[in-house]
Amino acid sequence: MHSCVELGELYLELHHRIHRLVDEAMNDAGLSLSRAKVLRVLAQQGPVNQATVAYALGFAPRSVTDTLDALEREGLATRGPDPRDRRAWLVEITPAGTVALDRAIAVKKALMNTIFDGLSDTEREHFADTLAGLRTRLDSKQETAHVS
Amino acid sequence: MHSCVELGELYLELHHRIHRLVDEAMNDAGLSLSRAKVLRVLAQQGPVNQATVAYALGFAPRSVTDTLDALEREGLATRGPDPRDRRAWLVEITPAGTVALDRAIAVKKALMNTIFDGLSDTEREHFADTLAGLRTRLDSKQETAHVS
Repeated sequence: MHSCVELGELYLELHHRIHRLVDEAMNDAGLSLSRAKVLRVLAQQGPVNQATVAYALGFAPRSVTDTLDALEREGLATRGPDPRDRRAWLVEITPAGTVALDRAIAVKKALMNTIFDGLSDTEREHFADTLAGLRTRLDSKQETAHVS
Repeated sequence: MHSCVELGELYLELHHRIHRLVDEAMNDAGLSLSRAKVLRVLAQQGPVNQATVAYALGFAPRSVTDTLDALEREGLATRGPDPRDRRAWLVEITPAGTVALDRAIAVKKALMNTIFDGLSDTEREHFADTLAGLRTRLDSKQETAHVS
């Protein structure tokens, strides 16, 4: 019988490995995971300011500066003036950025297939049910925490 | 039926939430997750140099400098000369660091209990089996990758 703490360690340790594999695979495909995450926000939300990008990723505004600089240097994103606020800048994905992001997404999908296709249909359903149940539970806990 | 990619997204999304909860809970307890991780390496491995700390966490040597500086500033770790190499420094956890680490570990355990105690015994065993199976699978894949 596994305790909650052992289960948590198992969960977090597996994530550590998956995360490293995803990061390595993306680096091999020419885009680090942190750059891919920023590009995905830009692709989903259109031209946005730096604070919005950081907020979407759960970071402080300044912590995406380096990544945005690197993306701009490599022609994957561009910065331009915000028409509604002349002191502000908006960041936008470029066509080359879209190509790089699509390639990174394809690499990640292939990796997910490799990782999870060893599970049987039943295992997969149980696993998905448990993950979804845990998520629902966390959501209700966070709501409670915000109320109290 | 969930595809591997959907399962992967579910897995990674849940991790994102758990990670944020652990980080918040540890910050509330006075130690960020990154500081707690460094302190745990110091507690486990004794006096070590910065490169060893970084390697244990899967980072480049320089990326732990800020955390080590902060830990030293707050009296949770100390740096001293390496008796075997006068150009090198060794980092060590302090008694106050051990207290802070123990508190952080207790906070994390309590959180893991909160997150996972909603699962039934059967769900917990299935979940643990699946996680352990995925880990074994990843290990054998990585060995294959290193051999080829």
